[in-house]
Amino acid sequence: VIIIGELINSTRKKIYSAIEARDMNYIKDIAKKQVDAGANYVDVNSGAFVGKEPEYMEWLIKTVREVTDAPLSIDSPNIEAIEVGLKLAGENAIVNSITAEKEKFGKLAPIVKKYNASVIALSMDDRGMLDDANEVLQIIEKMIMSLNELGIPNEKIFIDPLIKPISTNTCYGLDAMSIIEKVMTTYRNIHTICGLSNVSFGLPKRKLINQTFLMLLMAKGLDSAIIDPLDNRLMGMIATAEMLLGKDNFCMNYLNTDREGKLEGLV
Amino acid sequence: VIIIGELINSTRKKIYSAIEARDMNYIKDIAKKQVDAGANYVDVNSGAFVGKEPEYMEWLIKTVREVTDAPLSIDSPNIEAIEVGLKLAGENAIVNSITAEKEKFGKLAPIVKKYNASVIALSMDDRGMLDDANEVLQIIEKMIMSLNELGIPNEKIFIDPLIKPISTNTCYGLDAMSIIEKVMTTYRNIHTICGLSNVSFGLPKRKLINQTFLMLLMAKGLDSAIIDPLDNRLMGMIATAEMLLGKDNFCMNYLNTDREGKLEGLV
Repeated sequence: VIIIGELINSTRKKIYSAIEARDMNYIKDIAKKQVDAGANYVDVNSGAFVGKEPEYMEWLIKTVREVTDAPLSIDSPNIEAIEVGLKLAGENAIVNSITAEKEKFGKLAPIVKKYNASVIALSMDDRGMLDDANEVLQIIEKMIMSLNELGIPNEKIFIDPLIKPISTNTCYGLDAMSIIEKVMTTYRNIHTICGLSNVSFGLPKRKLINQTFLMLLMAKGLDSAIIDPLDNRLMGMIATAEMLLGKDNFCMNYLNTDREGKLEGLV
Repeated sequence: VIIIGELINSTRKKIYSAIEARDMNYIKDIAKKQVDAGANYVDVNSGAFVGKEPEYMEWLIKTVREVTDAPLSIDSPNIEAIEVGLKLAGENAIVNSITAEKEKFGKLAPIVKKYNASVIALSMDDRGMLDDANEVLQIIEKMIMSLNELGIPNEKIFIDPLIKPISTNTCYGLDAMSIIEKVMTTYRNIHTICGLSNVSFGLPKRKLINQTFLMLLMAKGLDSAIIDPLDNRLMGMIATAEMLLGKDNFCMNYLNTDREGKLEGLV
């Protein structure tokens, strides 16, 4: 699984305070810990600083770059902040995120292409989030075609089906699973990704729900996730699922994960 | 998920000793705890007492019946012990297990029919366990047809793909998943079942592997499992997965499970 470490997000209280105080050590520490724990991308989000997003995005990236060369996930609703981020991030960045909203797509997609970045494509358009799985698949198809036309190949596209709270509709889990399976079996080299926390909204023991859901989605082909890589159990379950899904020759990664002590306490 | 509580098995040391000492209270306690924890069937196995299996099977069932009317899983390699068990078990029993081995199938299948029992059908024949998933599917097809011909309908058949250790072949996890998906989508009203522990044979942190694997199999349609229902985490994950798989209207079962304190410590 391609893991985007989600922790450096200004909507989280501690991160907000650290950015506000320009506490480089705190941010560097979180960046390094996520990479050490196995994050393939480090997400950077300064969206809570309305009006100052580009400036804080620049500070965040320069700070993170002092400790790691890991690819970055440039996370913002603000196109200017994204472009500032992409300029600084260097190779292999991913844009988090684009949608099929006409104006946003028209402005942002060319920027993704210009910087040769990957992109997370959220399955919503100007109507907002859609409830019907077939309509969601239509948006996804349209986005993939449009991105391809701009010269962005499938291997740089991460489709996010936008998971909705299971507490609001019993079908939302199965819908997400079938959308992911459909996308993974229809489009060669495409990626599917999701944030996990929405599914458990409004329910107790949310981590248990999120962990379990990730396993169900992995069984359907999900190959990327936006998560907290410092969550030992989640990371251990991912390593275990990858082994069981035939992606770990001779169980080497699983055995190494165990030897490093990372599975301690998980039984 | 239909849960067969696996604990009253004479190959487990404590159970062996309890049977040997005719310790009814110990057996009754384990039976009751499993049913209280959510087991739909209580497995009874006296197989470790070679030559005395039928006699000990009788004692086990009479003992279990003092505390619960739950359906029983009559678990034995010995046909005589199975018939003794079925006579005593009453309605809704399940035979654990039949195979496609010619002699065994020929003798046991009519007994399953005679007592109107359900049956766990292990996907092996006189060649033993097979490595090739297509050959396994052929055995399964043959067994289902033969059982149907005897008047045993799909809803009484629980197909067990016989899961093999992932440590011996990277493909075994995916093989089991695809067999289960194939069976569940091909045969109307059929059940699929598995014991979990084989998959993790030879590896550390076996519970983690077994729990994770059950989630992957549930995503593919597995609807029954032979497990330890006193394993809180496993039972909590099952309740969670059922909710996510659309089988828990309004999340009522999940919320009740939480209210009963059964999800405590699972995050």
